Amino acid sequence: MKNIKLKLAYDGTHFFGWQNNKSKRSVEGELQRALEDVLKHPVILQAASRTDRGVHAHGQIVNFFTAATIDFNSFPHTLNEHLPGDMRILGAEKASDTFHPALDVKAKEYRYVISKGKVLLPFKRAFSWHYPYIISPQKMHDAARLIEGTHDFLGFSNISLDNDPEDTVRTIYSIKIEVHAEEIHIVMKGDHFLYKMARNIAGTLAYIGSGKLAIDVIPEMFSQKNRTLGGMTAPASGLFLDTIYY
Amino acid sequence: MKNIKLKLAYDGTHFFGWQNNKSKRSVEGELQRALEDVLKHPVILQAASRTDRGVHAHGQIVNFFTAATIDFNSFPHTLNEHLPGDMRILGAEKASDTFHPALDVKAKEYRYVISKGKVLLPFKRAFSWHYPYIISPQKMHDAARLIEGTHDFLGFSNISLDNDPEDTVRTIYSIKIEVHAEEIHIVMKGDHFLYKMARNIAGTLAYIGSGKLAIDVIPEMFSQKNRTLGGMTAPASGLFLDTIYY
Repeated sequence: MKNIKLKLAYDGTHFFGWQNNKSKRSVEGELQRALEDVLKHPVILQAASRTDRGVHAHGQIVNFFTAATIDFNSFPHTLNEHLPGDMRILGAEKASDTFHPALDVKAKEYRYVISKGKVLLPFKRAFSWHYPYIISPQKMHDAARLIEGTHDFLGFSNISLDNDPEDTVRTIYSIKIEVHAEEIHIVMKGDHFLYKMARNIAGTLAYIGSGKLAIDVIPEMFSQKNRTLGGMTAPASGLFLDTIYY
Repeated sequence: MKNIKLKLAYDGTHFFGWQNNKSKRSVEGELQRALEDVLKHPVILQAASRTDRGVHAHGQIVNFFTAATIDFNSFPHTLNEHLPGDMRILGAEKASDTFHPALDVKAKEYRYVISKGKVLLPFKRAFSWHYPYIISPQKMHDAARLIEGTHDFLGFSNISLDNDPEDTVRTIYSIKIEVHAEEIHIVMKGDHFLYKMARNIAGTLAYIGSGKLAIDVIPEMFSQKNRTLGGMTAPASGLFLDTIYY
């Protein structure tokens, strides 16, 4: 059996997230169906990140095992012919037998896109959050400095303490604030992200940039572990899983 | 009666073009309905350019007449609340009584977007033409020099000579070839464009960039006035009406 690693991009708009789901359209479900169409055997998929409903990916990484002979030059193209246009295989390669796309992750990079113009351009509806209230990207930059590092990020997640007694200490390596003509991008690189953590960081930084929250809220969210102190959970339409580092 | 000028953007994907149409969804139809909802009187619209089915606009200009009192600060927002999200009013102002959005045009600028990567990213499906065969943007640049200027553009249009004995001499002021990471943009500025002329120029330049046609085809298309010598009519999904100059 060979361990095959795929890189894929998707427009999350019309998917109920990564994870297989009997009644709803999922990225995993579509990819599994396409692989089974092509390979003619059952396929089990694992992903670097189980993205939520509506979240996009530029560089999701998944793996599966097969005994079939695969021509890696033509395989992405063949698979794409079996996939809907809102998801595309960008690459395929043989991985080591022990490679696991989630357990082996060194870092993940997410990009959060905010449309800052007064009017939301139709072309950006599906691929950004329209938040035209940011007056100080500098304050977002300053607040990002306080989020970087190793902290208990429970206050930046939507997980419930009752159900998830897991360790919530995570490391954010960097948060960059990019100011473009029509958009502000928040580029976050970290070891692992808790449930909705990227979107809570984006929402809190946006509120700080608009003056709706003070920078002091960041240390308070860490010390009080209370998400309601922060900004709103920014919508899925603005979030892109950009890069997985191994 | 005041003459009101509007600037609008739209994602052309789900419109059967600008022009009102009893059975199909049109930009004009949606805008007329929204204006009549807000102003409570019948509205007649004129546009700078009657864009075809599927063509996008960043800066379409239209006008209408009204006797109503209009607060220009709030009017775009009010109208947008009555419009679907795939079209947005970007601005509104009072024009001179004699302003006509089509007859007064000095120049129009179109942008044609080609996705050049091997795989078409899902995010670009609706907003580009996937043509991953261009090997020489320089040849496109060289060919563009031969298209600029005043010529009979009949050979670059889809109009039929039988039905349209109109003057087909037009002036292209400039064609720029922009090379981006994942895309090539063809930015065309001209006085008026014949039916499908922008998309025929884009298709022909793309074919020249791929080596499928030689640069010599340009003078031949001018002299023989024969569109079938050129490249394909590039698809509507890649075309944006960017700017109207008055």
